[in-house]
Amino acid sequence: MRTILVIGIGAGDPDQLTIQAVKALNRADVFFVLDKGAAKEDLVRLRREILDRHVEGNGYRIVEARDPSRDRSSTDYTAAVEDWHSRRAALYERMMLDELGEDGCGAFLVWGDPSLYDSTLRIIDRIVARGVVRFDYEVIPGITSVQALAARHRLILNRIGGPVEITTGRRLAAGFPPGVDDVVVMLDAENTFLTLPADDVDIYWGAYLGTPDEVLLHGPVAEVGGLIERTRAEARERKGWIMDTYLLRRREESGR
Amino acid sequence: MRTILVIGIGAGDPDQLTIQAVKALNRADVFFVLDKGAAKEDLVRLRREILDRHVEGNGYRIVEARDPSRDRSSTDYTAAVEDWHSRRAALYERMMLDELGEDGCGAFLVWGDPSLYDSTLRIIDRIVARGVVRFDYEVIPGITSVQALAARHRLILNRIGGPVEITTGRRLAAGFPPGVDDVVVMLDAENTFLTLPADDVDIYWGAYLGTPDEVLLHGPVAEVGGLIERTRAEARERKGWIMDTYLLRRREESGR
Ligand SMILES: C[S@@+](CC[C@H](N)C(=O)[O-])C[C@H]1O[C@@H](n2cnc3c(N)ncnc32)[C@H](O)[C@@H]1O
Ligand SMILES: C[S@@+](CC[C@H](N)C(=O)[O-])C[C@H]1O[C@@H](n2cnc3c(N)ncnc32)[C@H](O)[C@@H]1O
Repeated sequence: MRTILVIGIGAGDPDQLTIQAVKALNRADVFFVLDKGAAKEDLVRLRREILDRHVEGNGYRIVEARDPSRDRSSTDYTAAVEDWHSRRAALYERMMLDELGEDGCGAFLVWGDPSLYDSTLRIIDRIVARGVVRFDYEVIPGITSVQALAARHRLILNRIGGPVEITTGRRLAAGFPPGVDDVVVMLDAENTFLTLPADDVDIYWGAYLGTPDEVLLHGPVAEVGGLIERTRAEARERKGWIMDTYLLRRREESGR
Repeated sequence: MRTILVIGIGAGDPDQLTIQAVKALNRADVFFVLDKGAAKEDLVRLRREILDRHVEGNGYRIVEARDPSRDRSSTDYTAAVEDWHSRRAALYERMMLDELGEDGCGAFLVWGDPSLYDSTLRIIDRIVARGVVRFDYEVIPGITSVQALAARHRLILNRIGGPVEITTGRRLAAGFPPGVDDVVVMLDAENTFLTLPADDVDIYWGAYLGTPDEVLLHGPVAEVGGLIERTRAEARERKGWIMDTYLLRRREESGR
């Protein structure tokens, strides 16, 4: 039986791999790496560095493929993502059949943790449903960018007994979510924090967390929002890509 | 200058420590361990096992103290917790002054990740505010029980582009939170999932995650709710304590 390991590798700092993940890396014969185009070259390089550093011996192969591109012009976001996932499932299935022997062990290295805004497990579910290739799979958790953000700002995400919501820039565009005072925002390409009526909201922002390019900024949105916007634009211009995430925190706890 | 390291050690599996955490453990001269009474003996033992396994040499001390007890009879939850925190701050400050030299390095080992339902950082903020002892501090993230739960059930917490809320049993008692379909519940001593009008909600439940006692159950709340309640009661009876967490997932995505 083939085995697939879905390994969370942390969000930037190679030391944020767990011991469990290092052991898992050393079980795999083949690593599947999807190249997401020029902007993500740095991330592919980081994955290779992790393998160099943590895998003993040279008894492994890396199989690279070009990630099917997503239709970003579509107005139906969910349908576009669905279509993209189904093309990815076909590609992963092909790689598993071509590159993995009957008892082989293959690994997908997942940025951060596989449970948060990552499609690998959804695609694996699809491959299982297709029923063409039989395999077992295991998930190894990794430190998320949310935790990297909290650690660098030395934050607790929740208030005493209070909830935390993790959401996307796209959702935040509809307004501060109801019923929570502490919101972590990921996948925001649009500085959506600037659109909030934000005189009572603090922001804790971090980009390229865990990497040598890390930037941290925090303060009332009304005061530091513009600085974050400029810092973001400059960094993205300089490096060609950016990954950032932030906590929005209402200063006064709403009396729920 | 004194240094304090607040180190996330994962939620049960000693292999879920990061390499960064192992390095941090090896920087500390003194480990502060709070004994939370008989029920939590196992957890103190687990912390000791982690030190045995990961700290090289014997050049460290463990300082134990009895955790000030919280007033669980109080009806004002927040005030009771506030009072408890202020007594803890005084205790930690005392330990730092008595047990740590001027340039000493002390560590607090935090269950899971310090950013989630853990008071260590809040207490450190209080000690800083008191101004009696000067120190620097760093936070090292750890795998949370939420991630351990997701990995063992091989779940992605969010839907495509959707939000996730992390909350407590106490909050859930007020109803399924508004505006989200995927909710992780921690700190629930009351089987609160049973109180929901739950014919369209699935539950993914895990207890003692990452330990040899781990139990996993999942299914529609209406079908497996009773089984979870019994399993929980039996396990708690047998071991004297329980730690469990779960994801509630609405089967149909609400059309937000
Ligand atoms: C597709 S999601 C993947 C999240 C990942 N699975 C995790 O656990 O962090 C990508 C988003 O994660 C956040 N992110 C990932 N790595 C980051 C980093 N090193 N610094 C800041 N944000 C990061 C950004 O919000 C980015 O848009
Ligand atoms: C005070 S909170 C600490 C959370 C911790 N900081 C974390 O990151 O997971 C304690 C709650 O975490 C959850 N928890 C912690 N460890 C767990 C484990 N090994 N299995 C299941 N739930 C766990 C339970 O919901 C428990 O009530």
